[in-house]
Amino acid sequence: MLDSVLQHLDTDQDHAIDRLKQFLAIPSVSTDPAFAMHAPRAADFVADALRNAGLDATIHATPGHPIVLAHTPANQSPPDAPHLLFYGHYDVQPPDPLDEWTSPPFEPVVRDGAIFARGASDDKGQVACFLEALHAWKHAHNRLPIRVTVLIEGEEECGSGNLRPFIESHRKQLTADVAAISDTLMWDPQTVAITYGLRGLLYFDVQLHHTNRDLHSGMYGGTLANPANVLTNVLGRLFDDCHRVTVPGFYDDVIPPNEGERQRWSELGFDEGEFFARVGAQQPHGETGYSTLERKWARPSCDINGLYGGYAAPGAKTIIPAFAAAKVSFRLAPNQDPGKIAEAFTDWLKSHNTHGCRWQITQFGAADPVVVASDSPYITAAAQAIEHCSGHPPVLIREGATIPVVADLKQVLGIDTLLIGFGLAGDRIHAPNENFKLASFTLGCRTYAALLDKLSHIQR
Amino acid sequence: MLDSVLQHLDTDQDHAIDRLKQFLAIPSVSTDPAFAMHAPRAADFVADALRNAGLDATIHATPGHPIVLAHTPANQSPPDAPHLLFYGHYDVQPPDPLDEWTSPPFEPVVRDGAIFARGASDDKGQVACFLEALHAWKHAHNRLPIRVTVLIEGEEECGSGNLRPFIESHRKQLTADVAAISDTLMWDPQTVAITYGLRGLLYFDVQLHHTNRDLHSGMYGGTLANPANVLTNVLGRLFDDCHRVTVPGFYDDVIPPNEGERQRWSELGFDEGEFFARVGAQQPHGETGYSTLERKWARPSCDINGLYGGYAAPGAKTIIPAFAAAKVSFRLAPNQDPGKIAEAFTDWLKSHNTHGCRWQITQFGAADPVVVASDSPYITAAAQAIEHCSGHPPVLIREGATIPVVADLKQVLGIDTLLIGFGLAGDRIHAPNENFKLASFTLGCRTYAALLDKLSHIQR
Repeated sequence: MLDSVLQHLDTDQDHAIDRLKQFLAIPSVSTDPAFAMHAPRAADFVADALRNAGLDATIHATPGHPIVLAHTPANQSPPDAPHLLFYGHYDVQPPDPLDEWTSPPFEPVVRDGAIFARGASDDKGQVACFLEALHAWKHAHNRLPIRVTVLIEGEEECGSGNLRPFIESHRKQLTADVAAISDTLMWDPQTVAITYGLRGLLYFDVQLHHTNRDLHSGMYGGTLANPANVLTNVLGRLFDDCHRVTVPGFYDDVIPPNEGERQRWSELGFDEGEFFARVGAQQPHGETGYSTLERKWARPSCDINGLYGGYAAPGAKTIIPAFAAAKVSFRLAPNQDPGKIAEAFTDWLKSHNTHGCRWQITQFGAADPVVVASDSPYITAAAQAIEHCSGHPPVLIREGATIPVVADLKQVLGIDTLLIGFGLAGDRIHAPNENFKLASFTLGCRTYAALLDKLSHIQR
Repeated sequence: MLDSVLQHLDTDQDHAIDRLKQFLAIPSVSTDPAFAMHAPRAADFVADALRNAGLDATIHATPGHPIVLAHTPANQSPPDAPHLLFYGHYDVQPPDPLDEWTSPPFEPVVRDGAIFARGASDDKGQVACFLEALHAWKHAHNRLPIRVTVLIEGEEECGSGNLRPFIESHRKQLTADVAAISDTLMWDPQTVAITYGLRGLLYFDVQLHHTNRDLHSGMYGGTLANPANVLTNVLGRLFDDCHRVTVPGFYDDVIPPNEGERQRWSELGFDEGEFFARVGAQQPHGETGYSTLERKWARPSCDINGLYGGYAAPGAKTIIPAFAAAKVSFRLAPNQDPGKIAEAFTDWLKSHNTHGCRWQITQFGAADPVVVASDSPYITAAAQAIEHCSGHPPVLIREGATIPVVADLKQVLGIDTLLIGFGLAGDRIHAPNENFKLASFTLGCRTYAALLDKLSHIQR
């Protein structure tokens, strides 16, 4: 049965690219109110595509942008095969800086074997892979081999503020056995990766306030606490000589990767030189005793994401700033609890003598780290689908980044997620000239078509 | 002879205020090119006022705003009395934020016993004190009792970039025995201060660069050096547990105040509570073992004037910034050499392992600290003039701030400066609703008139 589906995908490829172009032409930037009217257009596009693939699709209003929810009709798929929940997002990042785009961000064009537009890889192109897989099954067999639920939101690029409440209030409609998300990278252009672990995230705005105005540094310098001096002094103590975070208890709950994982990672042929050279970094640096992949995938990290307060323009201004501030975030390793770490970090900040300066600490969204079993029947099915379509077995990897919905799906619905992505490091996501390789698009469509087939062979 | 001068000042007071209003109505903001056409107007005003007082005045073009230079005519003053060089500036700070002014910044008005306008206290009002003193002498006696040279620049508020070269190329025209500047504060509304010491200044922009762009903190967090982490770590080591600067050799050359000075300072009745409460500070804080006045007047200090780099807007952005930076400045105590300290600080920064990040250090203008003999005949004459006009002996103080021209006059011309100012802490200099108390204006005019007289009794 799969062969005819794949054959349809092959013959229908030009139409699939046209459909993706239509999707990409909708400037559904979620974070900028100037683009707000385009979110419902993108939701409509997705719902129509799902209906064309034979699903029942509904658009749900939220306090923000609408969420699209779709199901295979009750009578059309075997109840004994696994039920798959696919998640994706139709919103995109802002296109700025516009003058660095070779072609306009919302006028998709194909050149050099890739389709260029904002959202091409993140995430419209990858959502389209799944939509096309559904479409091909519908066309070839007029039904899907398994039950499918599709959840597409429009606020991923601005924090997914309405997603978790939606999942919680639609538990029943979201019932499934396993989830799939296509929003990650391939290992290399030949090798698809199944990502079975993600780090969590914790983000703070940390301000230290003192006087009621900026002061003249000649009049007051040396006589009272300068918040910028104190802030750097406190944050300067965040790491010890082994470059480990000094917040008490920070590492207590971290579950290290097992020996099998470490062994597999060391055999991946990770090109560390290229990883650093690509961004102009001089050398690896991090927690003593770990490899770069271990630091990225399995160890927590702490980054100051920005510093501000006082004078920042060119030249000199001799002030003692009224306040100084930093954005400080943590990537959390498996089993670290964001709530516990948030409290430990806040306590740690407050444990320092600030000589009269006062903390103003704001926490932004927290996301749990996730590791799923890498030997489940779902992963086996996914690996079979990938090998069938790409000719190579997939690699099993983790990622250092965070996809909060994965933890939401686990916590609210109790299901694991298959992270099978078709992006490449050169796709320039979030940057000008974002693009999605046509070869990746084709492989993604075929692999998801095959995944539906492989999952249908699993007995629940 | 002085009595008739002072009498003229009394009867002419309304005209003096009118003249000051005309001066203040010229928006001679030096740092903003939009105001550039007003600098020559202010220079003209000053030159005309000096000519009305009987001096020969010339306007000198510079690469920036013009400098006014004036002399008593050669035949009109006794060559055996000291020759006084008066320095001031006709430029003012920008008036922003405009909406916080009760009356427009360049429409001077008198209310509540003060004249309100940008520059009222810093420094046009204080320059006017000297101009009126000259004017009154001219009117009462048609000559001055001593030789006077007047140097008024228009770039003090933007760094005085053309002043030092001008002084160096006009050594002969600037020959004098002693200088006077009216750009400091009174001790309190009843007590005039003679400031005999100033701290020096050294200012740096310190940037730490690493990657060729901001990085995704999930993709790279924990694997390479984050410049914001490293910068806070390095700057966090700037102070030891006694809150002393850790740069090697930093304190080596500092000459502490002598026992007599410390004794006098402790008897000044400095209101430390008010000093801190005024700016909303919670408590004193600084180098262990010193009083607040000692820290402010006689100890070097180091302040981070601003922090920048990475994400600083509201909310969260999970990046590893490509660079992080700080403005770092030092106030230097007597006998510290800015060049030596600059080198020591730069070496200290570079002594740290930055794990691949690269320093980009820019130094802005350096100014030497200054202390002049507090028992010279000039200071005695100034004290007599002050007591004669205010009814109280002056206090001898130092200041924590920097007036670079004082060191320039010492180094190039070899002369000390009398710093006799009539500003008050409530004058709101550099802020909206800047004002100059009429009582201060009157006292300033009378005191400078008396200073000319008292200096004339000194035999060179």
